[in-house]
Amino acid sequence: MTTELVEIGAVPEAWTRRHLMDLESLTVEELVLVLDTAAMFKDTTANCSKKVPVLAGTTIANLFFENSTRTRTSFSLAARRLGADTVEFTVSGSSLSKGESFVDTARNIEAMNVDVIVVRHQTPGTPQLLAQHVECGVVNAGDGPHEHPTQGLLDIMTIREHRGNLAGLTVALVGDIAHSRTARSNIWGLKRLGAHVIVCGPSTLVSRHWKDLGIEVAHSLDEILPRCDVLNLLRIQFERQYTRPFPSVREYALLYAMNRDRMKRAKKDILIMAPGPINRGVEITPDVADGSHSVILDQVTNGLAVRMAVLWLITGN
Amino acid sequence: MTTELVEIGAVPEAWTRRHLMDLESLTVEELVLVLDTAAMFKDTTANCSKKVPVLAGTTIANLFFENSTRTRTSFSLAARRLGADTVEFTVSGSSLSKGESFVDTARNIEAMNVDVIVVRHQTPGTPQLLAQHVECGVVNAGDGPHEHPTQGLLDIMTIREHRGNLAGLTVALVGDIAHSRTARSNIWGLKRLGAHVIVCGPSTLVSRHWKDLGIEVAHSLDEILPRCDVLNLLRIQFERQYTRPFPSVREYALLYAMNRDRMKRAKKDILIMAPGPINRGVEITPDVADGSHSVILDQVTNGLAVRMAVLWLITGN
Amino acid sequence: MTTELVEIGAVPEAWTRRHLMDLESLTVEELVLVLDTAAMFKDTTANCSKKVPVLAGTTIANLFFENSTRTRTSFSLAARRLGADTVEFTVSGSSLSKGESFVDTARNIEAMNVDVIVVRHQTPGTPQLLAQHVECGVVNAGDGPHEHPTQGLLDIMTIREHRGNLAGLTVALVGDIAHSRTARSNIWGLKRLGAHVIVCGPSTLVSRHWKDLGIEVAHSLDEILPRCDVLNLLRIQFERQYTRPFPSVREYALLYAMNRDRMKRAKKDILIMAPGPINRGVEITPDVADGSHSVILDQVTNGLAVRMAVLWLITGN
Repeated sequence: MTTELVEIGAVPEAWTRRHLMDLESLTVEELVLVLDTAAMFKDTTANCSKKVPVLAGTTIANLFFENSTRTRTSFSLAARRLGADTVEFTVSGSSLSKGESFVDTARNIEAMNVDVIVVRHQTPGTPQLLAQHVECGVVNAGDGPHEHPTQGLLDIMTIREHRGNLAGLTVALVGDIAHSRTARSNIWGLKRLGAHVIVCGPSTLVSRHWKDLGIEVAHSLDEILPRCDVLNLLRIQFERQYTRPFPSVREYALLYAMNRDRMKRAKKDILIMAPGPINRGVEITPDVADGSHSVILDQVTNGLAVRMAVLWLITGN
Repeated sequence: MTTELVEIGAVPEAWTRRHLMDLESLTVEELVLVLDTAAMFKDTTANCSKKVPVLAGTTIANLFFENSTRTRTSFSLAARRLGADTVEFTVSGSSLSKGESFVDTARNIEAMNVDVIVVRHQTPGTPQLLAQHVECGVVNAGDGPHEHPTQGLLDIMTIREHRGNLAGLTVALVGDIAHSRTARSNIWGLKRLGAHVIVCGPSTLVSRHWKDLGIEVAHSLDEILPRCDVLNLLRIQFERQYTRPFPSVREYALLYAMNRDRMKRAKKDILIMAPGPINRGVEITPDVADGSHSVILDQVTNGLAVRMAVLWLITGN
Repeated sequence: MTTELVEIGAVPEAWTRRHLMDLESLTVEELVLVLDTAAMFKDTTANCSKKVPVLAGTTIANLFFENSTRTRTSFSLAARRLGADTVEFTVSGSSLSKGESFVDTARNIEAMNVDVIVVRHQTPGTPQLLAQHVECGVVNAGDGPHEHPTQGLLDIMTIREHRGNLAGLTVALVGDIAHSRTARSNIWGLKRLGAHVIVCGPSTLVSRHWKDLGIEVAHSLDEILPRCDVLNLLRIQFERQYTRPFPSVREYALLYAMNRDRMKRAKKDILIMAPGPINRGVEITPDVADGSHSVILDQVTNGLAVRMAVLWLITGN
């Protein structure tokens, strides 16, 4: 409950980035460095509940152009656990409604001496655009269907916590791969760390072109289930779809929902993950979501640890 | 203006609760303990203007499903005066719009290592539901028309400050008793501490069944006025009513508004209270609201003290 | 990056105000005192990036009745750089929607032991009304088209930083003078400090009555351009106009936009300012906004310094 001072050293020299744009461009060494740093922060702060004021005097701005209490709060709490100040910018109430350009908004925020801008935007590439026009650090908190690197990192951290090593594990991402930045960040990170990745879902939501990148493509969960060490059950993002990708939610659930019956045919030590918010009864049934194989809430806590690590690595550099 | 360190001891052993759900279930000892603690905090912090960082390292989440700048800010300031961090969750912008269940939202907040969730919801019983599904502390900040325990406590604290003792006082709650959680919390707390409670208003807003609980029921303010030590003038909550409970606002004001004329017929030392926001000219006229008997702004300051006490008692346990 | 303790003395005795309402009523001495204090804060905090916790234990409330992420955030960051706590009140979500009067809302905020209320409102005179009813400090953050004193101060600070002295400089305010509180605050401050002020724009937006106050009135930018040391390019505030003040945006830009061509005919050391958010292609072209004469982002940083100075002067008194 009380704040304790923990000794955190300097940012390792191996980390040279001022921005976190994606997992696609991270090397194995960088991925491991972030994951180790996150584990260190989680460890030294009693599961991210204590403060380590290593970023006192730093200001982190959340610039969110899409609804996201969850990710925004996680970044905000991570920043404050490090002793940083936070400021919140959301679309409604921002100057964009007065005709200001996106880059001008960001440069104005930076001119208030903000050290890192955490940005979420519906357009892929927005964080890169931002990084080209500001001097401060930029963290991608989700750019359209492109990437959501801290979500990928927290998913991988959670698997690593329970299995020690990613190499050789079979991890299936199930559901709406086409619209999911979480899927993309997971795929790049998991591949690089040696996991076998399967993307599984209806063909309207899972492109066969993933094969070209060394990813296994499956359309039947029941077929791949016995081989999976980890299932990451993506939410059907009704808000992103413009045509009906499957006949009905009931039919989707029949084919892809993780339920009691499927659990019986899964590996005895299977990990059940979901990036949330979960739709109970759609991609996951309540007994599985709340069951002993579920690490869904671990993911949330690890989100704090990963974001603490990323903010520290970027601003300490 | 400057932060001073004040020595606050441990939470008394007599306090064993991790949640504050209502005043109905509090014993006399518990009620007095909260009120004494609030008075102590008010005292040691120069009317709640200085900080006592006894909750440094603690995080308090406001989870509000109804509009309430006043109560939300009061909890938030109380938390920060104790050195705690705060996070704000409001309905719009939350994951609920993405189909997540209420309990899942709360458990996700908890997984970010939040120590207390302060919840306001339009459905009675929501805080209890929450407390069954999370490990962290829960404070009810208003659940529909059921209870609003910190409002009840701050009202009682204000009376106690001016009169020393509740026993034997006659306290009338005037107005919309039917839709008022403030009324309900006051009734339970006042009764337990020995006050004589009158509920007064049009019969459409004051059920005669209150008699069965030992509460006096009145429909004429003029009749009970000479006997009252305290009047608590509830706001007509136009936003909660689905049928017209009285012919017109003007008629309501004629019968129930506290005005100059009625003040002449009241006890010389009557206390005038209102939980606010007040509708000037409806339940109270400006000269009475701003007059020497009014303790309306004391109530606001005591709200801070009571919330500091509750947050400390719950998290220190 | 790390917080350093800087020794800041007492508030100078020459400063006696508890509120900042406008620049019209400030004396030369008071204007210089605020500007010097702002420069001191900017200097001792590495361009307002470090903290000086001289207002630890103080609470600053932002009470905004108009959209303004920029000004609100600037005040909030300024407060936190001084170690103060901040609370945010915005119209939506406030008690005003429940029928509470403006003054009651403010007095309730004050009763939570707030030390300064920073208020923005669409009605001129609102901050004065507030100051009459509360004991705490009040800062005008913009009252309709009347004044926006901290914006005037930051504009003047920026000129002073680049030119040392205001006396004898020719400063033109270009654009929508009629609806601009920024223009009004600039005019009073600049005049008092000895600058020659020109207001320039279409006659529908620039009243000839400004002449009576010793201000030069111009309708052709090209005519005054060669004489100007500073151009402050006001935004066309489409949201404030009820009739069309000019035939088209294109025509406005042809006559009043600062562009490459006009830069060739300007003084070699002209300063280009804009209070933002800027409309690229309307009052300013991108090459000028991003060019070497532009001090637009300096204005944003100086906004922090000015607000730190104002909050400190007012609460230290």
